[in-house]
Amino acid sequence: MSTSSGQSAVTVLGLGPMGRALAGAFLEAGLRTTVWNRTPGRDRELVARGATAARSAAEAAAASELVVVCVVDYDAVDAVLRQERVADALEGRTVVNLSADTPARARATARWADRHGVRYLDGAIMTPTTTIGTPDAVFLHSGPEELYRRHRPVLDALGGTHTHLGEEIGRAAAYDIALLDVFWTAMAGYAHALAVARAEGITARELAPFARGIGAILPPLFEETARDADEGTWSGEGNPLTSAVSSMAHIVQVSESHGIDAGVMRAAEGLARRAIGLGHGGDGFIRIAEVLGRR
Amino acid sequence: MSTSSGQSAVTVLGLGPMGRALAGAFLEAGLRTTVWNRTPGRDRELVARGATAARSAAEAAAASELVVVCVVDYDAVDAVLRQERVADALEGRTVVNLSADTPARARATARWADRHGVRYLDGAIMTPTTTIGTPDAVFLHSGPEELYRRHRPVLDALGGTHTHLGEEIGRAAAYDIALLDVFWTAMAGYAHALAVARAEGITARELAPFARGIGAILPPLFEETARDADEGTWSGEGNPLTSAVSSMAHIVQVSESHGIDAGVMRAAEGLARRAIGLGHGGDGFIRIAEVLGRR
Repeated sequence: MSTSSGQSAVTVLGLGPMGRALAGAFLEAGLRTTVWNRTPGRDRELVARGATAARSAAEAAAASELVVVCVVDYDAVDAVLRQERVADALEGRTVVNLSADTPARARATARWADRHGVRYLDGAIMTPTTTIGTPDAVFLHSGPEELYRRHRPVLDALGGTHTHLGEEIGRAAAYDIALLDVFWTAMAGYAHALAVARAEGITARELAPFARGIGAILPPLFEETARDADEGTWSGEGNPLTSAVSSMAHIVQVSESHGIDAGVMRAAEGLARRAIGLGHGGDGFIRIAEVLGRR
Repeated sequence: MSTSSGQSAVTVLGLGPMGRALAGAFLEAGLRTTVWNRTPGRDRELVARGATAARSAAEAAAASELVVVCVVDYDAVDAVLRQERVADALEGRTVVNLSADTPARARATARWADRHGVRYLDGAIMTPTTTIGTPDAVFLHSGPEELYRRHRPVLDALGGTHTHLGEEIGRAAAYDIALLDVFWTAMAGYAHALAVARAEGITARELAPFARGIGAILPPLFEETARDADEGTWSGEGNPLTSAVSSMAHIVQVSESHGIDAGVMRAAEGLARRAIGLGHGGDGFIRIAEVLGRR
């Protein structure tokens, strides 16, 4: 990855908020950084900080042996990469695709890369733009381990922790999907809770310290119940599904009594009632994972 | 609350896992504790530890000036309290109802208590049974402040933090509903994520450390976005609703491609799409709280 100047070079394709944060971290680390974005004008601040603005995706791809892609989804990835001149420029180089999409799309992109002699790693960024370049950033990677090891020094310029999840290229996207599932569902619950609280005369700021407390209970509970899920023990000791649905029904009832849509909780309650109907009422809530997964 | 023996006395009605934990903490603190449960046989261990077993709810109610009720919901509360002999025994005494239900049911119970000369505080327990008697327990209370202050010394035997949220009797239940909304929705998201992960060949234990990381992001985000929600600023900087729905659609797609029900995420995605349709696509996710609350 060393260039003739002896300095590592990296290209960033895609300059949305996350792409700009990535390019900024590479610049901060002293890497020769080339940037490009489909819509022009997003590179100004980065160029002022020393980035080289490429006039085309092909020019940007040709500028570095490591090309990081960070766009909105894999339709956007395809629109950038699957052009003859870009594919030619990428031949023999490495693409690290940090865009978010499904494992199936990651696998399809790897097949395309393979057909075009492009080395390919797929990754996911699990933390907000503000964490990039700091110890709080979390990156997941999958694909050939040798390739990952070779480019790890440049990726380390992004800060945080990097984990290689395996050679199967869809793995980072699969983790990403599962983790965003937790994240967005929880955020939907919080937004709904704020609406219900407001209807009851409670401001968001009054609720927040307690919501923070509830949030703090979740991480250890995630680890604890993971054991149950893998071992199929589903311990309902102290909090069986039958008492969970009682809470869930109260939430639906209060929400709807204020005219507030309770569709998310209705769906969640439905899963719990289905698990109870299948005979698992005495089990812990996480039994739902097993019921959901039945074919 | 002092009895003739000079020792504080407390009664616990309801000996489910939580009721037993409460009674155990009172005993641990050296309080003269009387216990009763509708289904017999739940009091054995407590009696062995020094509790007095009452033969009826009325006898239990008559035994102490402070009567703590902890049953599954307010239908169960009514079944215990709304009997002539029990109401007579409670006259002039204080009931602290730590059962969970809706604010409307808390208000109805307070009206019943008022009609029968029973002093009434409503409360909610926000942490699992294992926290009772430890610093980690969290109790919320509402009702007459003077009454709360008077009984606070006995309630302190339960450990943890106690917060009086106001004189409006429904307030503790309203907080409880909103906080359980966050909790159960997040747990439904985690259960679903485990099912999707498993379908992708990822065990719960492999996912858990990363899920823990996602969980750790939530509490500060809850506080941050509370400001947005109260002030109506809805900042989408770096993560607008339009990019959230892209993630949500991927989650639905991966889930359903494995035959896994995605009803919870479909409902959440629907809320986000509705907010976008109303012209709020550039706003942050928490704009959903405002859209949900519109009449």
